[in-house]
Amino acid sequence: MMRAVSLLSGGLDSTVSLAYALSKGYDVTPLTVRYGQRHSRELESARRVVQHYGLKGHVVMDLDLRSFTGSALTSEGVAVPERMSASDIGEGIPVTYVPARNIIFLSVAAGLCETIGGEAIFIGANAIDYSGYPDCRPEFFEAFERTLAVGTKAGVEGHAPKVHAPILRMTKAEIVRLGIDLTVPLELTWSCYQGGEKACGRCDSCLLRLKGFEEAGTKDPLDYR
Amino acid sequence: MMRAVSLLSGGLDSTVSLAYALSKGYDVTPLTVRYGQRHSRELESARRVVQHYGLKGHVVMDLDLRSFTGSALTSEGVAVPERMSASDIGEGIPVTYVPARNIIFLSVAAGLCETIGGEAIFIGANAIDYSGYPDCRPEFFEAFERTLAVGTKAGVEGHAPKVHAPILRMTKAEIVRLGIDLTVPLELTWSCYQGGEKACGRCDSCLLRLKGFEEAGTKDPLDYR
Repeated sequence: MMRAVSLLSGGLDSTVSLAYALSKGYDVTPLTVRYGQRHSRELESARRVVQHYGLKGHVVMDLDLRSFTGSALTSEGVAVPERMSASDIGEGIPVTYVPARNIIFLSVAAGLCETIGGEAIFIGANAIDYSGYPDCRPEFFEAFERTLAVGTKAGVEGHAPKVHAPILRMTKAEIVRLGIDLTVPLELTWSCYQGGEKACGRCDSCLLRLKGFEEAGTKDPLDYR
Repeated sequence: MMRAVSLLSGGLDSTVSLAYALSKGYDVTPLTVRYGQRHSRELESARRVVQHYGLKGHVVMDLDLRSFTGSALTSEGVAVPERMSASDIGEGIPVTYVPARNIIFLSVAAGLCETIGGEAIFIGANAIDYSGYPDCRPEFFEAFERTLAVGTKAGVEGHAPKVHAPILRMTKAEIVRLGIDLTVPLELTWSCYQGGEKACGRCDSCLLRLKGFEEAGTKDPLDYR
């Protein structure tokens, strides 16, 4: 059976990405990195998703990126922007950018993948709604695969893990539709940048999610404030 | 002043590499990753080196790679090989290989480098004595730099950090000589794969270090069992 590591934050994108890996027949090891996010609500969602799919060997790795100040996702001093609608989201690299985050996550995933003898890494990165994140662009994934080909034991042996970003070029509506097609438990996923019992509905992540569900012609099962 | 992140394990190679960065005029932020090594002797050495140079902002990051079983450096179940001399060290990838370790370390360094507005990352990787480690090869560093150029905010803005591996092509004797030239406190560094008060003198790392000092025509200031 083909083995894969699937990065799982507990959000919509990574959960759909993991479901996609499962649908392709991979024996999936979920990897969640706890990197000092301001809230732990996502981790709870990740655990519920893992439980839903009955997956074994969920690796939750602590990696405190709070010394990388400046991102709204890890720094108390930087506010998560709130807006009225998704159309207000500006161009450029957002303040929620965490330096080199996907590079770090993929590196850890590559190490784990090599350990389990896996042949693929799945990541729920998306280049459409978040074109501002440099580490969500196709050219980044190509460069990273090349790094694994020359920099790992598996690569030297000719079977470097492939990096799959199945939802990379999908709109949020397409991701929602894929999630529904794959019967993903969307009610277990969490996208909001804030913590709390209910999603805020105002941060960029909530706005994009809500717009996605709307354009997919269905209702988001999450509760919003 | 030019800023750089310098990966510092507390070993001979990373300490000489850091000293080299300082000699080139960089304002250095030392980064030590505590990745679940079997002993903490190296970390103590790293702290002493930082103190010696009076560096500020030493980042010690916990990243538990013990779930990557199989390496003698992180797994109790895998013995650190002991040999009689450096010439007994075999070809190929050693059991002390930790999957994707340098990729992970460099990724974390890249995130920190971006955070401090740095322009360079220094790593004490060496391709001569450890040609068996795929992530110590020049082609790996080139591929990784390309990843940073396309995958980081700094890269998109045209100033991706450069990866410097100043001792990459040096023999251990050359590293020792460079250390002496740069007045590196070699007595503070620790290379042994085992912990303890004194170095074991039998692991690959000790044997290569001792051979290096011998070929450099000087005595290793460390105590050996």
